[in-house]
Amino acid sequence: MPELVGNLLVAQSGGPTAVINASVAGVIQEAGKNECIEEIYGGLNGILGILNEDLIDINEEKARTIAGLKYTPAAALGTCRYKIDFKKKPEKAAWDMNRLFEVFQAHNIRYFFYAGGNDSQDTANKIHEEAVKRGYEMRVNGVPKTIDNDLPHTDHCPGYGSAVKYCSVTTVEVGLDVACMATDDGSCCIIEVMGRSAGWIAGGTVLAKQGHADNPPHIILLPEIPFDEEAFLGKVQETVARLKYCIVIVGEGLKNKAGEEIGADKSRVDSFGHPLLSGAAEKLAEIIQGRISLKTRTVKLGYAQRAAEHCASATDSDEAFACGVAAVKAAVEGKSGVMAKIVRLSSAPYKWTTDLQPLADVANVEHFVPRDWVSEDGFMPNEKFVEYARPLIEGEVKVPMEGGLPKYVVLEKVRVEKKLPPRA
Amino acid sequence: MPELVGNLLVAQSGGPTAVINASVAGVIQEAGKNECIEEIYGGLNGILGILNEDLIDINEEKARTIAGLKYTPAAALGTCRYKIDFKKKPEKAAWDMNRLFEVFQAHNIRYFFYAGGNDSQDTANKIHEEAVKRGYEMRVNGVPKTIDNDLPHTDHCPGYGSAVKYCSVTTVEVGLDVACMATDDGSCCIIEVMGRSAGWIAGGTVLAKQGHADNPPHIILLPEIPFDEEAFLGKVQETVARLKYCIVIVGEGLKNKAGEEIGADKSRVDSFGHPLLSGAAEKLAEIIQGRISLKTRTVKLGYAQRAAEHCASATDSDEAFACGVAAVKAAVEGKSGVMAKIVRLSSAPYKWTTDLQPLADVANVEHFVPRDWVSEDGFMPNEKFVEYARPLIEGEVKVPMEGGLPKYVVLEKVRVEKKLPPRA
Repeated sequence: MPELVGNLLVAQSGGPTAVINASVAGVIQEAGKNECIEEIYGGLNGILGILNEDLIDINEEKARTIAGLKYTPAAALGTCRYKIDFKKKPEKAAWDMNRLFEVFQAHNIRYFFYAGGNDSQDTANKIHEEAVKRGYEMRVNGVPKTIDNDLPHTDHCPGYGSAVKYCSVTTVEVGLDVACMATDDGSCCIIEVMGRSAGWIAGGTVLAKQGHADNPPHIILLPEIPFDEEAFLGKVQETVARLKYCIVIVGEGLKNKAGEEIGADKSRVDSFGHPLLSGAAEKLAEIIQGRISLKTRTVKLGYAQRAAEHCASATDSDEAFACGVAAVKAAVEGKSGVMAKIVRLSSAPYKWTTDLQPLADVANVEHFVPRDWVSEDGFMPNEKFVEYARPLIEGEVKVPMEGGLPKYVVLEKVRVEKKLPPRA
Repeated sequence: MPELVGNLLVAQSGGPTAVINASVAGVIQEAGKNECIEEIYGGLNGILGILNEDLIDINEEKARTIAGLKYTPAAALGTCRYKIDFKKKPEKAAWDMNRLFEVFQAHNIRYFFYAGGNDSQDTANKIHEEAVKRGYEMRVNGVPKTIDNDLPHTDHCPGYGSAVKYCSVTTVEVGLDVACMATDDGSCCIIEVMGRSAGWIAGGTVLAKQGHADNPPHIILLPEIPFDEEAFLGKVQETVARLKYCIVIVGEGLKNKAGEEIGADKSRVDSFGHPLLSGAAEKLAEIIQGRISLKTRTVKLGYAQRAAEHCASATDSDEAFACGVAAVKAAVEGKSGVMAKIVRLSSAPYKWTTDLQPLADVANVEHFVPRDWVSEDGFMPNEKFVEYARPLIEGEVKVPMEGGLPKYVVLEKVRVEKKLPPRA
């Protein structure tokens, strides 16, 4: 494969994670080793910023800042949810794609890396295909990212381990709190975690049990398994009768047997007449308090669970970094249209490596929790899930602290001079 | 003061914190130094367990476990919300008080320490007064505890600093997340923290700004300041216009001008006809989305904020321990009916010591955020609050980790043989 000389562009997309910046650090540090890569640019707010020609010059950043990306949460380059949708908006999509290639050409971008989830890998694939079609020599690779862990082909996604670690630590701690308050009246606490269609995060909190059957969580509700209200209430009552308290984890996208999200009950409206979307945990609390009069409290971790660098997994961070490195290495070797992925070699001891998967295999395919990784009653992931998730939360990311708070890095964001007229 | 020889009983009460066990460790380790204190017992679930004669023998615990209480959240002895209420239930209160002294006498308890908040200090005071009345020689001192920070006379309460640290770290991290997602549409995220009547925790998150005016949080709503919907919406819009996003912190007990909690809107009912108590953050999100159509998400930290040892303040932990030590020292010196308190000697550099306050001054008095510690518009604590709160979150409690999760200690809880017939 002939050497391709030119500039590199890296961008981030979709919901951020605790380790998506570690992937960018991997891209940048690996790129710096290769002479064929001349300038290193960052696209602000993903595709959206590239369309606006909002590029920054990464070589203007301090080396200390680049290294700091390994322990800084959220997307340092900014992110977006912008879609290039050839099906629904073919004209706009064609216009956008054209504009992207104007920007790539204007800045001699020959290496493009996009860190993101399903949609983002799809976007990367479309750009790769367009480059081939146009005969514009550019290598386009994806870097996986999503706390939801729903990308196929990779053993797991960078971002997932840190989310599970944070949610599991929270479950251990809230469990101790509720247990120590539990007297004969009994009580229940429901912790809502992210996961609209896949229950990977909720399921991962099984690790909080630390191998003890009676430890919290006592019930885990996954979006993949239709909610059975009677069986659930029975399980809560049985748990409270035995332990005086019950900790429930619910994935936000929990659905009833009709496939409707229970947290988006259309029969309830707010004071503006809009359907109430107060969430799965609140809805479950309503059911428990209404039907069995058990004191119930809720915790909704929301964005905190994907941003909690202070409780991130070192394994996850290392893997995220390695995926960035692998995507660049593949490109320098001449590969395009692939996503870096994590391959598990063994679970105990945990051994892993990176490999590559064609983007076309990844784009828009969702990966769910297998049914046989969950107990027959559907309320608890089993040993298969534990074996899978356990290594992913190992190790702690060291975050420098100042005045009792984390000292995260912020990019200087020195703009690359624009060469094109503004986007119409 | 003549030496008082006998046994010690320590118990915990009310909502737990990240450092209430550190206070118990302080009591136990200081007690161990004094020969006049023979046996060291723990009362399970506070007053409730003492009424049931559920005592454990602390000297049966490993020294390693006692030391581990310094980094273990929740109440290792269990806690309760049991009240001895002479006003509302005089007969029951008299019966309870009698039973307590039967237990104290049966086990020769001559030193009693109660760690808790307002109600618990009131209980300790009643027990102290009863001992004096009965001529039963026993020294009864309080150890302050509450994340709410609403006890008077002490500069601040053990438990508060850790709650503020965790909520501030979360605010920094969620702020980075929302900021990096912010594009022209704008967005808002509301983080609900504890504080039914006092806004100390909400106010403390001003530290997350780390001295930069535009850093999150952008609005802090305290229960002490009546909610002004129009001014609030104006402030949100102004912030989003400038920064494209807005982070709001709300104390759960935020009230409207009529003094009603906005999170307990009686006009909304759940599917069982009960008033919806989904909380202040959900209600604010409803208002923002309904009135200015701004994408809004919520985080409700709930019990996590008082249990988050993994993000606890070392300063707070040290002070909690010192309060336990001070309560025992006072008792050994002959003092009874006092609460250990923290006295601030200077803020920068931060210097503090412990002192004592009569329980009668503390019981049932609430301490609120002074109005002149908050900006004129009521939306942001000012430099006075920052100076007060800044030192309280300094330093990190070192929690041993195993398999990626914190390794907290659990007491063996070897029961003291009961000497009385069961409670009627």
